[in-house]
This record gives sequence, structure tokens and C-alpha cells, in this order.
Amino acid sequence: MSQPVPDNDISDLKTALAENADAVSEVLDEMLPVMDTPEARVVEAMRYAALAGGKRVRPFLVTQSARLFDVDPRAALRAAAAVEMIHCYSLVHDDLPAMDDDDLRRGQPTCHLKFDEATAILAGDALLTKAFEILAAPETHDDARVRSDLVLALAKAAGEHGMVGGQMMDLWAEENDLDVAQITRLQRMKTGELISVSAEMGAILGKASEDARHLLHAYTHDIGLAFQIADDLLDVEGDAETVGKATGKDAAAGKATFVSLLGVEKARQQASLLSEQAARHLELFGEKGDLLRQLARFIVERRA
Amino acid sequence: MSQPVPDNDISDLKTALAENADAVSEVLDEMLPVMDTPEARVVEAMRYAALAGGKRVRPFLVTQSARLFDVDPRAALRAAAAVEMIHCYSLVHDDLPAMDDDDLRRGQPTCHLKFDEATAILAGDALLTKAFEILAAPETHDDARVRSDLVLALAKAAGEHGMVGGQMMDLWAEENDLDVAQITRLQRMKTGELISVSAEMGAILGKASEDARHLLHAYTHDIGLAFQIADDLLDVEGDAETVGKATGKDAAAGKATFVSLLGVEKARQQASLLSEQAARHLELFGEKGDLLRQLARFIVERRA
Repeated sequence: MSQPVPDNDISDLKTALAENADAVSEVLDEMLPVMDTPEARVVEAMRYAALAGGKRVRPFLVTQSARLFDVDPRAALRAAAAVEMIHCYSLVHDDLPAMDDDDLRRGQPTCHLKFDEATAILAGDALLTKAFEILAAPETHDDARVRSDLVLALAKAAGEHGMVGGQMMDLWAEENDLDVAQITRLQRMKTGELISVSAEMGAILGKASEDARHLLHAYTHDIGLAFQIADDLLDVEGDAETVGKATGKDAAAGKATFVSLLGVEKARQQASLLSEQAARHLELFGEKGDLLRQLARFIVERRA
Repeated sequence: MSQPVPDNDISDLKTALAENADAVSEVLDEMLPVMDTPEARVVEAMRYAALAGGKRVRPFLVTQSARLFDVDPRAALRAAAAVEMIHCYSLVHDDLPAMDDDDLRRGQPTCHLKFDEATAILAGDALLTKAFEILAAPETHDDARVRSDLVLALAKAAGEHGMVGGQMMDLWAEENDLDVAQITRLQRMKTGELISVSAEMGAILGKASEDARHLLHAYTHDIGLAFQIADDLLDVEGDAETVGKATGKDAAAGKATFVSLLGVEKARQQASLLSEQAARHLELFGEKGDLLRQLARFIVERRA
């Protein structure tokens, strides 16, 4: 049975997302203590990038998937913080003048404008490195096999065959016309892999069965794509103030997106279909999967 | 007994360094297979940065310290390749226009000139990420505790309290006058931590005793500093063609170095003292430590 979410009930999700965001910020704050040595500036910049808020969707996927397997919440929060560090580093580097050259992120000056380019590069490098330090630390899990598997999964998702490869393909796409299959692959790498590994990390922490992992993977595969289509729609339909970053950039850059290739209406339908399909993958988990099901809906309906 | 190295005999070391460099390059080549997808450019840039040669001193420290504890050579080479990826990523990012703005590295155009800035940033990110992927992969060691410890040690050495922190302090030093204690701390972080962790990784792979680890740590502490002083001397006395990168930069930038603070003669003496002291820490290892002892000497006598 597909257990559809009632139309007007995502208040549980909003509460849970907010609580999760607070908890993740608290852990990140602990993990990046302020220093007063000459190199303190890089930690300041790491904190600026990591503690700027945001919905913390990836960490939410870690903690919620961990809940499915009764993982110690503290372990899940540490893994969640690691994933968020990877996400935040990628934003800092993507915003650099040599990359997307963005001035605004979550409504605030981007890291290289707040500090300087060199500090932003280093802060990104240090956040990326710190993510693996946190996962490999014994405090994250008693079982070293779990820690090692977390590192391996996250590194694969973030590296040249995952997020970084996606970013490279995105730069390539500025001078090449992509079709829907290529855009799907690009987005799968650029944003999808990190979304998928977030849920996978909950499963690794909980030593979940292969079946459960496959279902979670199918779920994240669908919400990842839905998330990206929703992002493309926001770029066309949103305004910078609500979205918290520049909009209309893709069209201005002549970049192919799901929306430019499919049109607004078909893109919206596709996102909805993916969202419904995602929810169905979670049937096995019963009520425990409710919030993840609501998330699949929320992702395509969000306005920021 | 201190087992001094005869004055004219470092030919064993030179042979061993060359063999090690070839073996490390081979493993790096295997780990970064050429692709033909749109994102292949980032792998090309990773290969350009990682396969450009160099003495591979850090990987040599991994494989030689691993030999002290009879580690499987293949495991040691994988760990060595991971350390070298971290070293190479740091060179790519340090050479960027926003950082040291260097045009020449190992006699070749720096990565951002050969490719472009965006690709160089991404290639650095991907090399950094790949290092942890390699260490966490089951192929590196059967024991997950070893893999997890390797990741933890390398991440700490490379992060905001290690190499990245050192690079940040180096930027700070451009506008602040450092004394010898501060320069020592800077260099300890910027280059020393990665040198130390290289030998430590051999010990982790070999599940070495605490005593053995402490001795190796003391050895790398000394050669790390000696290495840096020798680098400062080369910056003053070397020419770009032999050294393979721009020289005279520190003086031109008005940067304090060991040489500017101590003078050439005293700096040279200090490096020699450190090198001898380093060799003495290895007495426990007997003949097995010969090449590492020779390395301590080579480091302060090199001309490039």
C-alpha cells in the first residue's frame, strides 16, 4: 500500500526539519571551535560557510534513514555533519570567481567576498578534509568497519565520479548542448550522488540489509532528480530575495536545464511523478518512513 | 650507537628513491584511469598534477616506514599514493592566482595555466577526496580499524590544524613579522604534519608499538624542519631551472624564513644538526632504518 500523505499535512516534516537543522548546527558548532591563533581565519571561514543555515536536507536524510534502523542519534548527527561539510565546501568552491562567480548565498555575501578568495579556497579544502576526520573518529561508531565504509561511500559520492565530476560536466555544458539524458547524468553526479549517499550513510550506520539499502537508494535517486527539477523551476520562477541566491542565471547563461528542455509544465509534472514514485519505495518501512515520504513531497513544492 | 652514514654513500638511497617514485607513479596511474566522458577533463588535470614526477619523498616515508614493520608492499604503496595525492592537491591549490600565483611547478606550467582555474580547483578537490577513498577501500588493508586509523591520521595532518592551517598562517605571515618560534610552528603545520603522518601511516599499517611510533615521529619532526630549512636555502641559493620552480620569491615578498631570521650559515648548521638528530632516533630499527637515515642526510644536501 502506498500510504499517500494527506495534502495539507507536512507540519510534522517542517517541525522535524527545523529540529534537525538546529541539532546539526549545534554539532557543527562543536566540531569547529573558534581559535585565537594566526590561522584562526580559516576556521572562521569554515564556520561562516557551515553555520549559515539552510534547510539541512542532506543531514536530514542521514538522521532519518538512521532512524529507520534504530541508530544512536549522536552517531547519526556526526555523520550528518560530515555530509553537510561536504555540501558546504562544494558551495564555497562553486561560488568562487573562477567557477560560478556568485555574490550571494543564502542571502549573505559568499565566502570569498566575506573573507577573500585564498581563505575561501582553504576553508573549502579544510571542510572537505574535516568531513573524513569526523567519520573516521572512533566517537562516530564503535565498529571500525562502519567508519571505514562511511568514508568510502562519502568519498566516492563526492569525488571525480560523483559531485566533482558533475561540477566539471556542468562547466563543460556551458559550451555544449546537452540533451535530457546528459542533463540527467550531470545532475545525478552533481547533486544526486551526495543526496543518495546521505541516506546510504544511515543504512551503513544501522548495518541495514541489502534490500533496505536498495529501497533507500531508489528513493534518493528519485528525490534527487525531483529536487534538481524543482531547483531549475525556482531559477525560472523564483525571485532572489525568497530563494536566497541569484535567480535566472541558467537562462542568462544559455544553459540547458530540465525546464528549458521540457518546458515548465512538463518539468513540474515530471518532478511530481518522481516524488510520488520516491514515496512508494518506502512502503517497507511503514510509519517510520512517514517523514521521508513527506520530504519527497516537500522537495517539489518548496518555494525556496 | 648512532650508525653514521659514510660521507660518499647515498647511492642506495638514490636507487631506492627512484624505484619508489616509479612504483608510486604506477599506482597513481592505475588509480586515475583516463576517461572519455564529458567530465574527463578533471581526471586529466588530476593526472597532470599527480603524475608530474617529483622525488616522492612523502610516499617514500610511507613505504620505508612500512618496511620496518614488514607490511605488505602493495598496501604501503596504496597509502603512499594517498599521501602523494594530498601533497599534489595542495600544490595545485597553492599555485592558484588567489594564493601564491605560481606559473611553474616541477619545470612545467602549473595546473591552472595548463588547464584553467576552475579545472585546477576541481582537480585539487578531487585528489583530496580520492586520497580518502583509497585509504578506506578494503583493498588497502583487511583490518577496517587500520583503514579507519589511516583516514583519521591523514585527515588531521591535512586539515585546519595541519597543512591547511599552515597555509593560512603563511598568508597571515605576509602581513605580520614572524619570529623563529612562529616560523617553526608555521612550517610544522604547513609541511611537517604531512611528512610526519607519512611515516606514521607505515606504522599504522604495521600495527607498530607505541615506542616505535614515537621514534618515527621524532625522526619525522626533525627531518620535516630540516627539509623546510633546506627549501628556504634553495629559495635563496638555487636557480629556477635546477629547482623547477620560481626562486627568490620569499625575499621578494619580504617574507620571514629560517634563512632571513638565522642567516645562511646558521640555517645550514641547524639543518645539519636536525638531520643528525633525526638519524639517531632510528637506532632501534638497526639496518632496516638505513635508507631512512640516508634520507635525513639527503634532505639537507639536495640541490633541487
